[in-house]
Amino acid sequence: MLLGRQTWLFNQKPKIISTGTVGGPIESEGKLADDFDLLHKDLFMKQPSFEQAEQQLIEDACKIAIQKQKMRFEDVNFFLSGDLVNQMTPTNFAARNNKIPFLGISNACATSTGALALASYFVDTNGADFVLTGTGSHHGAVEKQFRYPTDYGAQKPPTSQWTVTGAGVGLVSKIGTGPEITSATIGKVVDLNQSDPLNMGAAMAPAAVDTISTHLAERAVDVNYYDLIVTGDLGEIGNSIALEMLQDQGIQINENKFKDCGLMLYKSNQEVFAGGSGAGCSAVVTYGHLWKKMNNKQLNKILIVATGALLSPLSASQNQSIPTIAHAVSIENGGV
Amino acid sequence: MLLGRQTWLFNQKPKIISTGTVGGPIESEGKLADDFDLLHKDLFMKQPSFEQAEQQLIEDACKIAIQKQKMRFEDVNFFLSGDLVNQMTPTNFAARNNKIPFLGISNACATSTGALALASYFVDTNGADFVLTGTGSHHGAVEKQFRYPTDYGAQKPPTSQWTVTGAGVGLVSKIGTGPEITSATIGKVVDLNQSDPLNMGAAMAPAAVDTISTHLAERAVDVNYYDLIVTGDLGEIGNSIALEMLQDQGIQINENKFKDCGLMLYKSNQEVFAGGSGAGCSAVVTYGHLWKKMNNKQLNKILIVATGALLSPLSASQNQSIPTIAHAVSIENGGV
Repeated sequence: MLLGRQTWLFNQKPKIISTGTVGGPIESEGKLADDFDLLHKDLFMKQPSFEQAEQQLIEDACKIAIQKQKMRFEDVNFFLSGDLVNQMTPTNFAARNNKIPFLGISNACATSTGALALASYFVDTNGADFVLTGTGSHHGAVEKQFRYPTDYGAQKPPTSQWTVTGAGVGLVSKIGTGPEITSATIGKVVDLNQSDPLNMGAAMAPAAVDTISTHLAERAVDVNYYDLIVTGDLGEIGNSIALEMLQDQGIQINENKFKDCGLMLYKSNQEVFAGGSGAGCSAVVTYGHLWKKMNNKQLNKILIVATGALLSPLSASQNQSIPTIAHAVSIENGGV
Repeated sequence: MLLGRQTWLFNQKPKIISTGTVGGPIESEGKLADDFDLLHKDLFMKQPSFEQAEQQLIEDACKIAIQKQKMRFEDVNFFLSGDLVNQMTPTNFAARNNKIPFLGISNACATSTGALALASYFVDTNGADFVLTGTGSHHGAVEKQFRYPTDYGAQKPPTSQWTVTGAGVGLVSKIGTGPEITSATIGKVVDLNQSDPLNMGAAMAPAAVDTISTHLAERAVDVNYYDLIVTGDLGEIGNSIALEMLQDQGIQINENKFKDCGLMLYKSNQEVFAGGSGAGCSAVVTYGHLWKKMNNKQLNKILIVATGALLSPLSASQNQSIPTIAHAVSIENGGV
């Protein structure tokens, strides 16, 4: 059901019935290591390239989510997924191997919630029985493509973020048990003329704020309706900007109830600059840590707001500012 | 309504109520020039780069589609779109300017029908009143990114295709008149181990065949149900391979009823090798030429099957084969 312009309410109880999460070596040493299904010690994961390692991450996350339910890929109607590598080849090649009818979703690091919103929409409206959805990213692949090969040892400012090596996938269905996806808000592109590609958190904060405030207004709930609002990968700087912007708009959220996946994933002594980022960041935290907390009833109503910076190395070199976007998905125990 | 594993039947009469199509200089001299709303004589379109020219194409197509209905962008719920440039910046920047809640769709040149399927699904299930959807491509931007800068004058084999400079957009709604979108089949990735990036038609033909045969089986209609089946951009070689493969499977389609957007767009004396291609190819033909023919009742039941090659320059240089995909959408006068 459409609420307002851009929010869907899901009445038919689509649930995340299974998940798969895979991480890399830095994630193995992080704060949420226990919440991963599979952790790799080596960044190459026995593959010949970082891009193929990323494909492996996505494939393994898919396999784990399906195997937990004792299902087969043939039982799944659609695979909705995307990543940050040019032309999304890791996802495309993973889709080649799982052979599930596939729609590629591309909203940078906001892809995880955009794709989860779609998956929930299809299941809610009987357009699918089972949808597999998720995202991945790989530190080496992303650094090589967007910045410099890591071997150069280029220095970074403290505003920059650390791309997560990991993939997180969820299986959405009405059949089975799990926390329910109750609503979603599709964001619009926001661009406040930030142009520093080494400070994406600041660029993305206004998109997160726009989507959160739209979501609360269209769903007609107070910010305290949720136990927790979790942004995708704003990092330290973006998180504090977003908190201030929300409070300026009269949305009085307690900072303990406003977290960021990029800040939850690593320990304070890990050298990840302003925090984690990448399309896999919100996916591994959502489908790993948060999904477990929802299943344990430690959390009961959460809003996940993955954020994406829609720039490219070319748009940055052509001196353009950074358009950003955020999509919100609410997950609740007990439904709407 | 879900039919089989991967086909949706639309019962609530979502329609393409308006379209906008924009083309470049080569398209101005083509066979379908009269079917464009706007044609540019210059490849730069007064922009400083090819990528920004592509953004302009998409923006203009959106504006035209909306203005024909005397609407505003604020009236539209969602914008579903994508393109071939890394990180889809032309589409992302167009979405920044139209400010419509945005989901980026990325299935290479199959994006046009993938996004139209989604748009129709949302309207059919009351998840949106108005959805704007379409794709664009730009010859200069794509050559520069995927092959060589055009200034080099690199030679190409006759199996290669010519990337269309153009954008096509449709406005989907139940409110208003226009041909109805009656069903859609989301394709799965097919890879028969082709690896020549200068012969994409041959690589994509099996994906088109897989989606067409699945569509006919799941919708339970004979191939002759349709007046015309139009593939996205298989070109001459892919078109003849697909025809033969369909006939081998016992799907007896007359070759006059099996066309390809890449072969419809240009005149035979234009030097476009095996035909047109690019994400804009199927979009300009669908939302221009075919939409007019449907409105005039010269055609009444068509199936559009846009095809995409999911490779990247990197995956090709890493010696990987070309995964491909196709999504089918049926458009009919008089509904289901």
